[in-house]
This record gives sequence, C-alpha cells and structure tokens, in this order.
Amino acid sequence: MPSFSSLPGFRDFYPEDLAIRSHIMAAWREAARRYGFEEYDGPPLEPLELYVEKSGEEIVRQLYSFEDKGGRAVALRPEMTPTLARMVGARARALRKPIRWFSLPQLFRYERAQRGRLREHFQWNVDVIGEEGEEADAEVLAVALEALRLVGLGPADVVARVSDRRLLERLLLHAGVPADQLPVTYAVIDKLDRAAEGKLRERLQAEAGLDRAAVQEVFGIFEHGTLADLGGAYAGVRGVDAEVDRLTRYFRNLEELGFAEFVTFDPRIVRGLAYYTGTVFEIFDRGGKLRALCGGGRYDNLLGALGGVELPALGFGMGDVVLAELLAERTLLPVAATRIDYYLVAITEAERGLLRRVAQALRARGHSVVYGLRPAGVGWQFKDADARGAAHVMVFGPEELVQGVVVVRAMASGKEERVPLQGLLE
Amino acid sequence: MPSFSSLPGFRDFYPEDLAIRSHIMAAWREAARRYGFEEYDGPPLEPLELYVEKSGEEIVRQLYSFEDKGGRAVALRPEMTPTLARMVGARARALRKPIRWFSLPQLFRYERAQRGRLREHFQWNVDVIGEEGEEADAEVLAVALEALRLVGLGPADVVARVSDRRLLERLLLHAGVPADQLPVTYAVIDKLDRAAEGKLRERLQAEAGLDRAAVQEVFGIFEHGTLADLGGAYAGVRGVDAEVDRLTRYFRNLEELGFAEFVTFDPRIVRGLAYYTGTVFEIFDRGGKLRALCGGGRYDNLLGALGGVELPALGFGMGDVVLAELLAERTLLPVAATRIDYYLVAITEAERGLLRRVAQALRARGHSVVYGLRPAGVGWQFKDADARGAAHVMVFGPEELVQGVVVVRAMASGKEERVPLQGLLE
Repeated sequence: MPSFSSLPGFRDFYPEDLAIRSHIMAAWREAARRYGFEEYDGPPLEPLELYVEKSGEEIVRQLYSFEDKGGRAVALRPEMTPTLARMVGARARALRKPIRWFSLPQLFRYERAQRGRLREHFQWNVDVIGEEGEEADAEVLAVALEALRLVGLGPADVVARVSDRRLLERLLLHAGVPADQLPVTYAVIDKLDRAAEGKLRERLQAEAGLDRAAVQEVFGIFEHGTLADLGGAYAGVRGVDAEVDRLTRYFRNLEELGFAEFVTFDPRIVRGLAYYTGTVFEIFDRGGKLRALCGGGRYDNLLGALGGVELPALGFGMGDVVLAELLAERTLLPVAATRIDYYLVAITEAERGLLRRVAQALRARGHSVVYGLRPAGVGWQFKDADARGAAHVMVFGPEELVQGVVVVRAMASGKEERVPLQGLLE
Repeated sequence: MPSFSSLPGFRDFYPEDLAIRSHIMAAWREAARRYGFEEYDGPPLEPLELYVEKSGEEIVRQLYSFEDKGGRAVALRPEMTPTLARMVGARARALRKPIRWFSLPQLFRYERAQRGRLREHFQWNVDVIGEEGEEADAEVLAVALEALRLVGLGPADVVARVSDRRLLERLLLHAGVPADQLPVTYAVIDKLDRAAEGKLRERLQAEAGLDRAAVQEVFGIFEHGTLADLGGAYAGVRGVDAEVDRLTRYFRNLEELGFAEFVTFDPRIVRGLAYYTGTVFEIFDRGGKLRALCGGGRYDNLLGALGGVELPALGFGMGDVVLAELLAERTLLPVAATRIDYYLVAITEAERGLLRRVAQALRARGHSVVYGLRPAGVGWQFKDADARGAAHVMVFGPEELVQGVVVVRAMASGKEERVPLQGLLE
C-alpha cells in the first residue's frame, strides 16, 4: 500500500479550494471582459533561452528548467511576458493595435523551500501593447482595481502606489546620480520599505558611487508626499514639469474611471526589474501586512528585445495567493452555498426509472440534479441531499405518483409543494 | 533581434484559438454542474513514482520526466487518475461517498514528434468513486454525452461503444482462454478495429498460446451484434446471464437518462489499459474518421494500488483536440460574434473625460466597454469599433452634449438612438 504525496510547494485543489480559485479567476475574467480584453494562453513549457534573454543567466537558478528527451533546454514558465512577446512578435502585423490581451497562467519558480512558500501560483496577466500614451496606463491600472472591487475590496482595503520611472530618472539625474548608475539606484530605492535607511544610504555610496550630498538629494525626493508638492519643489528642473504633467493627466484619467480613492502617488515605487521604462505600480493591502497583490508598469523596450517587434507596452501580474489571503482576512471568501438545485429521492425502487427521466428533463433545463446511485432508505437520501448542499429535494413516492405529482421540499425553509409530473417531463 | 519559437507539439492559444478552448471547457463545466460534479485540480508536476506505480517503467519513456534541483525524479502529469487517487487517498474518510468529481487538467506526453502530433492537450476527467453499482456507470457515460450534446453533437454525429470486461472475461474463459492469458487477449482484441483479423488470430496463438479452436471461439464472440443476441447465444454459460442482466440494466438506465440513441453495445471495446475491471466505453464520431473523442470505464482496484484506499471507481477522459476537430468538421465551432457591448467615440478631445465617466458607469453595470486610448478622428474610431466587434457605438459630440444626450448606434442595423446622459451616469 504505497503512500504518495505531492511535491513541496505544489498545491492540491480539493473542491473547496478550487471554489476559491474559481471565484478569483471569475473576477479576473469579468473585469477583463468589462474592459474589452481578450484571453490568450501559451505553453506552460518553453525554451529556456526565452527567459535567459530577458532576465539573464541568473534567472536560471530559480527556474524549473531541464533538458528534454530531444536534448532541448526547456523551462516551466516563470512568467508570462516572454511568451506574450513571442506570440505578439510572430503576428505583429496582423494584430490590431493597441492589443488588449489577458491570460491566467500557472507560473513556476524553483525557490528555496521555505515554510509555506509555493513553487507555483496562478497569475492574472493583463497587457496593452502598441500605445504609448498615459490613457493606456490608466486603463491598465483601472482593470486591476476593477477586479479587486469585484471581489469586494474597496479603497479602505487596498491601495495602488504609483510612480513613473521617467519622472524619477529626471529627479535622480538632478540629484547627481550618473546616468549609468540609475539601474543600481533603482534597485536600492526598491528596498526602501524593507531595509533600514542608513544601510541604503551606505549602499548608494558604495554601489552607485554617490557622494554624501548626492545621497542626501536622493532621499530628499521621497520627502514629498504628493505629486503637486514634488512638482512644486522641482519646478523648472530639466524634464520634470512635463513628467509631472503626464502623471497628473494619468491620475485624472484614473479619477474619471472611478478609482481616485484607490490610487496614491509614491516615488518610492520603482519595481525591482530592469526593464520598466515608465509608470510603475504596486497594489498593497492598506494594512501593509501582506506582500504586494499586484505589480506592473510600462516596458516600452522589452518586446523589441524579446519578440523582435518594437512596440510600446505595459501590463501587470496579479497572483492568486496573496489575494486569497487578503480575502480570507476580510471574510470575503465565497461561502459554500447551495451546490445542487434538486436532489431526487425515490421512496421505493419502483420509482427509480421515472426519477431518472425527470432528472434528464430538469438537467436539460439547466438545473443541477443529483440522486442516490443505488436504492437506499428515505432517511439516508435526505441526509445525502443535505450533505451535498441541495436547495430542493424532490420526492417520488408511490402514493403521490398515483396522483401524478411529486413533492418538492425547499431545504432551507422546509416548505413543501406538490408539483404535477406532467409539467416536469414535458 | 532574436526570434523564438514554441516547443514542437505545444500550442499557442491566440484569442480566436482560446475562444474555441473556452467554448469546449464551458460545455464540460456545464455538463458537470448539471450532474452535480464538483471541480478539483492537482499539480501539473508530480513525483515520477506516482506514474510508474500505475503504468510500469515503460511509461517513463513517454513522460516529460526529469530530475529537479532537489534531486527528485518528477514528471509533468500525463494523466489525472494517479493525482486523483493520491488526493482521495489522503482524505478518504472525510470525503462523502460516492465522490463525484471532475477536473480539466492540461496533460503532457513526450511522444515521438509526428506531423501535427501534440505533446499536450486538455482533458476533461470525470470520476465517481465509492459506488460499484451500474447506476454509477450509466451516470458517468451520461454526463460525457451531455457535454457533447451541449456543443451541438447529436446521435447522428457521435456514438458511445460500450462493453463490460466482466462479461467478456466470462466469454473468453468459456472460449478456452486461460485466466492468466486474459490481459494479453484484451490487448489483442483492443486492436480489432485497426489491424487485420488474420494477424490478430496469429497473435492470439503466438502470444496467448491459444489453439485454433479457441481462437475461433474468441472471434465468434464478436459476431453477435446486440447484447440480447449475445446473451441468447451464451445463455447458461457460467456467469454470463448475470453479466448480461447487469449490462441490460445499465442500458435501461442510459435510456431513462435520455441517451439511448447515443449508445451501442460493442464487445470489441476493451480499452488497452490493464486496470479496467468492469464497464468500458469509447465515444467516436459516427463517420469513424477521427480518433476516439473519449474513453473510460470502471477501475475498481486502481485506487487501492495508487492511493492506498480500496474504493470502487469509474471515470473517463475527454480531450479537447479531437473534439475541436469534429466540431470544425460539423461547423459547430462558435462564431466570433460581438466581443464588446459599447465602443465610446469622442468627436473632440473635450469630451474624453466625460466619456471615461460613462465608461466607468457602463462597466459597473456589467457592460463590456472600449474606447480609443488616444484622441483620433471619428472615422478611425468607428473603424476601430467595427474591427473590435462592438455591438454599439456611443458618440460623444459637443452639440449633443449641450442637449444632454449621446447618440447610440447599433452596428448591425445602423439604427441610432439619442440617450440622455443623466441616466447613463446615475
């Protein structure tokens, strides 16, 4: 008698777990539908080089990568963007721009096994490709927030922290950061919420080669709490006004789309990855207890590097795990309600053939119908109906059948009704 | 400028391809819901041993198997039943029997690369666990047929060919097949539709050690076209009558469930795999041009072997590839209809803020809404609305806005209507 278990970091979805996943995915799909995004998908297994090209050799350590039986280096997808770039690149001319696509892939990373740390998750990916204006940026963040609103989260529960690398670049150059030190400076700023400021100041000196005055200037940027405040403080600095104007239009777009209360400007948001070129955002729970629910931004150069097609683009990924944690905390998970419309009960064996004919007729009308798959006592059948979450029990008894009726009992109220068989079978 | 491609045998799902997949999956889920089955899922990556235990070392050749970075032998799932057995085994006591579960996994096989031969597909898996009576068998085949009916296939399009290994075993023993030669005999019978009879006769002699008379007896079984005919011919043979009675009840069940015209008895159906113990079935297109759409049967001993829990069980797998081929041939694939409810058009830039407010309000009511993400000419916007499959265009013009209205044009009929803005924004 062998005893198997699943691999560490992989989830089994029993029906009650899958109900949560389906609830989240339904919200993702519904938000995407309302915003006119179309669903696509790619293979869960891709050539390894597809990921190396974007993220460099170091990503390989975190990949589920292996050599297949044809000698190809392959990997389980750790993210969707390279597949998206490949697919768009292959049909770039035929696809109508801007492309509005979404996907719900399962993604894989071979991270060091930690308690509760998963090696797979589902991630909603939404992208707009072929449009560089800020209206596209607003539309993308709005659809993310629409999904969160659909699962019951409001501005008191979640906040989107937004910035723009183009603005930050102007400010950092002004602060004295050399252009070639911008990437490492972004990487340090990305740690502002998680590391001590003193340590980050040291890193800026050591890794980006900034002097103390420049470091002071850099940290001065983050003392401005609003975009207007920041824009005022740096007015006239080369390129800043135009970037502040662009972000101001973007926030006005989001307000018009109904999400003003969900969104805040936060220059500390830069996103760790190198390839972002414009707006960047992360959505967090207001309590700040959980990891980010969602992260995204504009990556105008990535498709050229990956898919061989130069198109401005932006998008985000929203995972199922942190979102489910937040929904659980807010008691917003779906309650296991009625799962079956009708459970059919036969008093004696003689009624079972008729019972099946009625089951067929009810199912053809779209009802969910279950009956016990072997003769059993009435008490057992009622208990089974209850355990399976039946909304109604329909009783087929010899006396009622003589009168051409069945008895339908609503399980919640206990109310009973005699229903003519003829109408059921028509 | 790199140019990547997907791995051979793996599909990209562009939106028009994904629409077909979604159409099929929606029918699978709807049929399952009507029959009161609950959805589950497991990991796409499992320990290799889980598959070796069921199917033996030779299966390894056809698996996407590899050693992960922790030194574990793992495999992309080639089928769902071992995962199901593992999950049921882990909670066997707590789960209400019979268990009625379904899943929609993507499955993987490393088959020799042939033209058009895929290495992945999606498969609807439906199982009833914990019930040995024939009513369960009828229910399982019925839900498979319900899904086919939901996508528009009728008894003129598809046929379920059904047999029972318990009956065939009695007949083969009667024909002179030694009990220990039953498995190889099943394997030969499984080839009846695909190989010359002479060759199969030779194999029965060579591999199962049958003499010519026994071979003749075996082939005699398949000359009976109906269950009644067969039952009459072998009446009184040890165990046959009981098995014919059981199958007769099973067919009556299917008739009561509304599927009589879809189902035929065919003793040549045995299914290749060793683990089936009772009813077996395959669903084919009536033309017989395509591979099987679906195959399944009863496997009462498998859960004990795999999951450590002795429970009678049966189920089937229905793949997406052959079904999509048949739907294409019958012109039953979904037509790309309207994809957006409203496309909002702004005559001048001044209306774009209001346009976004109306977009928000319409989306909040569940409508699918798109607008151009940058100012553009009216002609371009109408063209874009048309290309994106908009049902209606809603025009925001300066003159109409003064009157507090927008113009809504139904794209199919060209009919226009003036709609008060106030009602849209409420």
